[in-house]
Amino acid sequence: MRIDIITVLPEMLESPLNCSILKRAQDKGLAEIVVHNLRDYTLSKHRKVDDYPFGGEAGMVMMIQPVDACISHLRSQREYDEVIFTSPDGETLDQPMANSLSMLDNIIILCGHYKGVDYRIREHLVTREISIGDYVLTGGELPAIIIADSLVRLIPGAIGDEQSALSDSFQDNLLAPPVYTRPAEYKGWRVPEILLSGHEARIADWRHEQALERTRRLRPDLLL
Amino acid sequence: MRIDIITVLPEMLESPLNCSILKRAQDKGLAEIVVHNLRDYTLSKHRKVDDYPFGGEAGMVMMIQPVDACISHLRSQREYDEVIFTSPDGETLDQPMANSLSMLDNIIILCGHYKGVDYRIREHLVTREISIGDYVLTGGELPAIIIADSLVRLIPGAIGDEQSALSDSFQDNLLAPPVYTRPAEYKGWRVPEILLSGHEARIADWRHEQALERTRRLRPDLLL
Repeated sequence: MRIDIITVLPEMLESPLNCSILKRAQDKGLAEIVVHNLRDYTLSKHRKVDDYPFGGEAGMVMMIQPVDACISHLRSQREYDEVIFTSPDGETLDQPMANSLSMLDNIIILCGHYKGVDYRIREHLVTREISIGDYVLTGGELPAIIIADSLVRLIPGAIGDEQSALSDSFQDNLLAPPVYTRPAEYKGWRVPEILLSGHEARIADWRHEQALERTRRLRPDLLL
Repeated sequence: MRIDIITVLPEMLESPLNCSILKRAQDKGLAEIVVHNLRDYTLSKHRKVDDYPFGGEAGMVMMIQPVDACISHLRSQREYDEVIFTSPDGETLDQPMANSLSMLDNIIILCGHYKGVDYRIREHLVTREISIGDYVLTGGELPAIIIADSLVRLIPGAIGDEQSALSDSFQDNLLAPPVYTRPAEYKGWRVPEILLSGHEARIADWRHEQALERTRRLRPDLLL
């Protein structure tokens, strides 16, 4: 899978892209993530990528010309399945969406910044708008990394233990059951006896009950 | 506001904390964000912070001892309003929650990693569990940065133009109206005439209608 990220703040993405799963998946050749500095595509003398909004309003707006130039350049090199714009009013990212996006070959993620992007970009250049949640952030850079992380970890081989991804929360519409590790007692707080019993079948039952109980209590909406 | 972030991957947070709003707010003295390497708090010889889960299951689990030691150390230095754990089964972050958290003085954010944290941490040490959305990520580091960004930008003075934060999506339960910038025509795609008209009152009406229309069409749930 190849992910091209278009941003005015490429330096913000450096450490997350060079750590953890995103680095390992790139090192293993499972994913290629390429960051493009929008300023490299502007025709303006001063590398300007934003301007004042028409109609007078606070904030700056990202201009269509450099975004169009960058996307056109990428599209001239390969086919893209989606051009994603990270926006609080997009479809909300969830695990089924992450699962299906993780099967695509090439995607572009355009990070919004400032007050937003010229709406013509969203009407004519973007194929899909995705929100990571109902809150406002300073820019689309963190959402782009969130989307990349949620997709790349699903590529077979990206995380060490695939069983681990399958038993994550949401993959079966249940929250994950509690997990515990050594020591069995810490400051008087003990691990549930069942987990120390060695009875595999009973432990599996206990985990399923706990997952169901936690989901019913905390996220009944997932069971509908 | 002070935010202490506890993580096994401090290097992952470097570039986001040194960019954009999070850097500016720290430079202005509006926010202090301190990252703690969990490995500095382990009593284990090999700086181990995780171990196999009891009951046999895939993945590794973060141990309680270093987390307890780090939180206790921080609590000995100042009062904390919340000890937040980033988890997919926590309360879902939204703008009202971000607004109220942004008024706190000191918070700790514990980033989960691997298969999860020893559940006793969540029962005894954490005061609040927050999810940034219904999808699974490799660790809690990106969610911690998302939470920090969403809170810090609300601190008065953190973003240049406060009007801009107030007119963001969600602050009035409406999605933001479309914005446009120069040029007025690009490849035949024109900016709506009303925005070029100079009629302030009519432009304000148009924006409100657009916000309502977009919200009805894309996110009718916000209007309930």
